[in-house]
Amino acid sequence: MGTSFSDFDEEIGLPMAAPRTHHSGDVSNHDDEQNLTQMGVAMPFPTHLSRPTIARVRPQVDCGRRPAKAAVGDLVRIEADAFVDGHDVVCCLLRYRHDADAKWTTVPMESLGNDRWRGALPVNELGRYRFAVRAAVDRFATWRRDLASRDAVGQGASQDFLLGAQLLQEAARRAKSDDRRRLSLIADQLRLPVVNLEHEITAGVVNSSGASLRDVVFSDWLALLMIDNDDPSHFVTSEAFFITSDPTRARFSSWYELFPRSAAADPLRHGTFADVEARLDYVQAMGFDVLYLPPIHPIGVTGRKGRNGVTSAGKTDPGSPWAIGAREGGHTAVHPELGTLEDFRHLVRAAAARGIDVALDLAFQASPDHPWVQEHPDWFHHLPNGTIRYAENPPKRYEDIYPLDFRGLEWRALWHELLEVVLFWVAQGVTVFRVDNPHTKPFAFWEWLLASVKAEHPETIFLSEAFTRPRVMEHLAKIGFSQSYTYFTWRSAKWEIEAYLNELTRSDVADYLRPNFWPNTPDILSEELQVGGRAAFVSRFVLAATLCSNYGIYGPVFELQEHVPRERGSEEYLNAEKYELRSWDVKDPRNLSDFIALVNQIRREHPALQFNDALIFHSVDNEKIIAYSKTRTTRQDSDVIVVVVSLDHESPQSGWVALDTVALGIEQATPYVMHDLLTDARYVWRGARNFVKLDPTGVPCHLFSLEQSPDAIAVRS
Amino acid sequence: MGTSFSDFDEEIGLPMAAPRTHHSGDVSNHDDEQNLTQMGVAMPFPTHLSRPTIARVRPQVDCGRRPAKAAVGDLVRIEADAFVDGHDVVCCLLRYRHDADAKWTTVPMESLGNDRWRGALPVNELGRYRFAVRAAVDRFATWRRDLASRDAVGQGASQDFLLGAQLLQEAARRAKSDDRRRLSLIADQLRLPVVNLEHEITAGVVNSSGASLRDVVFSDWLALLMIDNDDPSHFVTSEAFFITSDPTRARFSSWYELFPRSAAADPLRHGTFADVEARLDYVQAMGFDVLYLPPIHPIGVTGRKGRNGVTSAGKTDPGSPWAIGAREGGHTAVHPELGTLEDFRHLVRAAAARGIDVALDLAFQASPDHPWVQEHPDWFHHLPNGTIRYAENPPKRYEDIYPLDFRGLEWRALWHELLEVVLFWVAQGVTVFRVDNPHTKPFAFWEWLLASVKAEHPETIFLSEAFTRPRVMEHLAKIGFSQSYTYFTWRSAKWEIEAYLNELTRSDVADYLRPNFWPNTPDILSEELQVGGRAAFVSRFVLAATLCSNYGIYGPVFELQEHVPRERGSEEYLNAEKYELRSWDVKDPRNLSDFIALVNQIRREHPALQFNDALIFHSVDNEKIIAYSKTRTTRQDSDVIVVVVSLDHESPQSGWVALDTVALGIEQATPYVMHDLLTDARYVWRGARNFVKLDPTGVPCHLFSLEQSPDAIAVRS
Repeated sequence: MGTSFSDFDEEIGLPMAAPRTHHSGDVSNHDDEQNLTQMGVAMPFPTHLSRPTIARVRPQVDCGRRPAKAAVGDLVRIEADAFVDGHDVVCCLLRYRHDADAKWTTVPMESLGNDRWRGALPVNELGRYRFAVRAAVDRFATWRRDLASRDAVGQGASQDFLLGAQLLQEAARRAKSDDRRRLSLIADQLRLPVVNLEHEITAGVVNSSGASLRDVVFSDWLALLMIDNDDPSHFVTSEAFFITSDPTRARFSSWYELFPRSAAADPLRHGTFADVEARLDYVQAMGFDVLYLPPIHPIGVTGRKGRNGVTSAGKTDPGSPWAIGAREGGHTAVHPELGTLEDFRHLVRAAAARGIDVALDLAFQASPDHPWVQEHPDWFHHLPNGTIRYAENPPKRYEDIYPLDFRGLEWRALWHELLEVVLFWVAQGVTVFRVDNPHTKPFAFWEWLLASVKAEHPETIFLSEAFTRPRVMEHLAKIGFSQSYTYFTWRSAKWEIEAYLNELTRSDVADYLRPNFWPNTPDILSEELQVGGRAAFVSRFVLAATLCSNYGIYGPVFELQEHVPRERGSEEYLNAEKYELRSWDVKDPRNLSDFIALVNQIRREHPALQFNDALIFHSVDNEKIIAYSKTRTTRQDSDVIVVVVSLDHESPQSGWVALDTVALGIEQATPYVMHDLLTDARYVWRGARNFVKLDPTGVPCHLFSLEQSPDAIAVRS
Repeated sequence: MGTSFSDFDEEIGLPMAAPRTHHSGDVSNHDDEQNLTQMGVAMPFPTHLSRPTIARVRPQVDCGRRPAKAAVGDLVRIEADAFVDGHDVVCCLLRYRHDADAKWTTVPMESLGNDRWRGALPVNELGRYRFAVRAAVDRFATWRRDLASRDAVGQGASQDFLLGAQLLQEAARRAKSDDRRRLSLIADQLRLPVVNLEHEITAGVVNSSGASLRDVVFSDWLALLMIDNDDPSHFVTSEAFFITSDPTRARFSSWYELFPRSAAADPLRHGTFADVEARLDYVQAMGFDVLYLPPIHPIGVTGRKGRNGVTSAGKTDPGSPWAIGAREGGHTAVHPELGTLEDFRHLVRAAAARGIDVALDLAFQASPDHPWVQEHPDWFHHLPNGTIRYAENPPKRYEDIYPLDFRGLEWRALWHELLEVVLFWVAQGVTVFRVDNPHTKPFAFWEWLLASVKAEHPETIFLSEAFTRPRVMEHLAKIGFSQSYTYFTWRSAKWEIEAYLNELTRSDVADYLRPNFWPNTPDILSEELQVGGRAAFVSRFVLAATLCSNYGIYGPVFELQEHVPRERGSEEYLNAEKYELRSWDVKDPRNLSDFIALVNQIRREHPALQFNDALIFHSVDNEKIIAYSKTRTTRQDSDVIVVVVSLDHESPQSGWVALDTVALGIEQATPYVMHDLLTDARYVWRGARNFVKLDPTGVPCHLFSLEQSPDAIAVRS
């Protein structure tokens, strides 16, 4: 992968390097150069004298060595500094192409002031795009600007017109037939003995009659024509940067995790793929689009863990699905009690028919009973005495799991087998994978594996389950993971949530790491959910689903508000599904599924919630209330969502929200309507500061859609 | 210059690229590889599986394409992320060398937590240093950590000892004689049938008797020995980054600008170099170390400007020194009325004897009477009708100045001549230059010129006088200017000063741009000085001299508090020295010279004021009072300076300063002494919040040195 990032095309120059060739054409004077060399000039002369500097191109990951991420349908905002010494006008262009395109597309970038430029790259295909920024001194625009300022004070001079004629004639020489004729004609006009900008222009230059020379000289079309026909050697081009284009679902997804073996209606029976299929309507009704299943493979017997994770399993204990591999097979087999491979494919098809992707778990480790242990002992770690090393986190030992030796003598065969595992499931229709503990395997492995899969299957999505140090989590995203678990589960205080979200959405991290927020997982029952009651479940759910365009819950324990830990101080669930069959009554009246369905519907209807880049926090004079907004503006429409959540799950809280009205485009003087999409209530707000009160016994949050004026009430009702 | 930055040595690898060779030695299995290729693996396998990732190396300018800056005597702080997948221990090294050194020096970096590492590069010579960060998985440290955690719970196992023996034996094979023997002996101990960490170690491993195996295994010397003898292929090395090493004065300098022609004691006489020499005692007494003279060359007659810049000069008007060139010569000639070249050299030597550098002005432009106009008409811009183009900023025209055509047909000869100009003055003993309007000449020119001069004269210092857009000012610093004028002159409000200084001292800009703060210049009499009276002069002076390690004033107009503008709304001085002879009575009792001398003395005595990197602003509950600190800690000493300045030049202001006591190392409970170095008063402060009151009729600022406890009073008095 590394090498492909330096796959620059021939025109690419280093943006910071000294300019390369003389801008006014071929002026090499060999005698002169030789004389100067004899004079003892220490440094070689530069070869370009007038090309702009291009710097700070964004998005840019690790100085361009890694791709930034985008999703199909995105309009990626590209920015760069471009400037030149002196007062000349710079023109700045964005060019891009998909790997499959033969030609670059070039579009102008707009000036944002202070030498910053912006352009938009439309991502329409899966795969990889490359882009570069080009800039040149725009001599015609410079001439035109100076002419205009002289013209404004009545200083028009024939010398200026002759200079302009020179530029036009130069461009004409490079232009094609029709353009050449037009440029020459305009140049001729500027060379007339007495030039007057009010002169009516000769027919043939423009179609409309009555256009003056001034109209033509200052027209947009002439400006573009002059750029198109400028000497290409005037341009400097940045190095190429890369963007990986993933499916839209990589950016916007709602995940639901369940244990298939607990999906049976009969609490005593081991659930099957058919049972999961029967639950698809329930999952669809809640509005989820990814259904993630923990490992579905045969489970080892040796060292099998019992209920609540005890080391000696009872005879009927089903074991942890992550202890993969038994007599019946390993990572490409299905647990016989779940059904057959055909049952699984049927489930995948049934889910797809509902717009739901079935996601599998990639846990690259083995139980001692995995076929690989006998067939490929070299894929495991060995102690000097020849025994296989079990997993350990000293001084803890996990005798029931053998980690794979990704760097052993047979690493290539192992890696290839693991690639085959992924491709096997892709062949069964699975394109979304949750990857277990990727940080305990080599970065080099993931980079190779993900690139290998995506080369053939750019539609695949990989969620990194790395709960580890920040730099490691970031690096996994850089080397190819599409989405990443985060620290959200442990961020409870307002300042923690704000600081963490600003890091995820406003720093460079946002260019390559897509967060996926989970209020709970089978491994994490947070303290907040243990003690906070229903209000905690509702508010943590709303935070996850509105702060982050990708989120997920582990159900049905979440919507049924399971909250008892295995023991005090533990984040493990009591009687966790990881170690035993459970049965869930999703018809329980306490089920939050209707609320979840409503929030997921709002997410689908409001594009603002499908992106993270426009997240802004607004101040509230109460540390127990958090307020934030997301906006999405298209040519047709502006979608503004404002969320206010109480972080207190016991007592009512109230306070004054101070909205950043400038950022939200709210006029201070005009009242506006905040439509709470959760309750359908509408509130008329005025100015920045408005009062809110939230009660944990009701809905402890507002999920507002901003309606610009009170008239909207009439329109909508 | 560009190419030299990619002058990597052979061991350099891309820090982000996939690892390159297998860490456990040569395991290439060609049959196997071939089989896998036939299996259709899309991506090539990586060649290194266990090397750490190195990222975010600092300082790093433009992804390493440009050097960062340091000064002789600095200990440059180098930081980097270095981390690896899994739980292995990483070791991280800094290596560096001066261009003149044949070998790298390698020193360990210390872990700052969160995968961040820090090392120090001591800059002792002028010129250029390169550095790189190296990292490897430290297998011995990993083994030792795991052994310690097992040992702590009494889990010692012979398998662990054998693993350790393997590592030691591997290192022994690479070690030199004595080390080899020691490593082998320790390995032997670990291979004994029954190993006990309490075993007394065999003689010959350590000198001291009675050392146990545990003492040896966990010793620092063994850890370093194992790193030294690790397989070099285990290491990954970042690309090389560069640091330019300038004279210490580039980092810490106090500039004084004066017009030599106004230095005469007799107000009617044109001042001379001898008059300037007579004023050296005055300049030295004030404590300045750079004496900067506006251009000292013959002044053109054609189009000469009169008093206050009017376009028609009177017969006796001396003209602007920046209209360089006349019958008597150009950029290498001296104005006859100032004296001879020998007089100038005498001045330079006399200044040097006082520790003062004479700085000259490089203004690369010509009056119409400059010899170059006749000798090299091609060095100027020509209009289509053949006339030379004068300077203009449309619609304004400057008929009296011809800009040079840095991109004309004869550009190489012109550039070479300008280089010769600089080298001429270097030959006269000048090493410090203030460069006039560098942003109106090509970046490529400056990059070439400065590199050419510094290749032979790394002792030179160039101050960029570019008052233009931020990106352009930054770029000039990146391509070689040693110091830069700034926007300080126009930053008056507290929030403006804080924001601007945070940008200059805390962003990446601090790595390459050295600000030089000027309260006034011959072109800029700020509005604040026009209306603020003596208090404005004092507080702007203290701000410049304590916020910034490099600063300067244009005198004697500054210390004499000249403050009348040419006209209302103008920043030009009335009767400016730029256009006429003036005479200054430095014995005027209002002269601020004693105050200036005191502040410059404090700057020399307090290292904290000689750097900008530890600047911190502290909050004050009054927008008219600004408070900040600078600290410098060495092994011997800690220097803490706290400055409090009133920004109100009319009325007294008071408020509570809330010091960041953690940053300053102040214990909340213990009172401490703030010694005002301006008044010699001592105040006992307690905790973070303390009261200040500043009066514009007295000294409107405090310049405190922090003395840690009230006992210090007794010690010092």
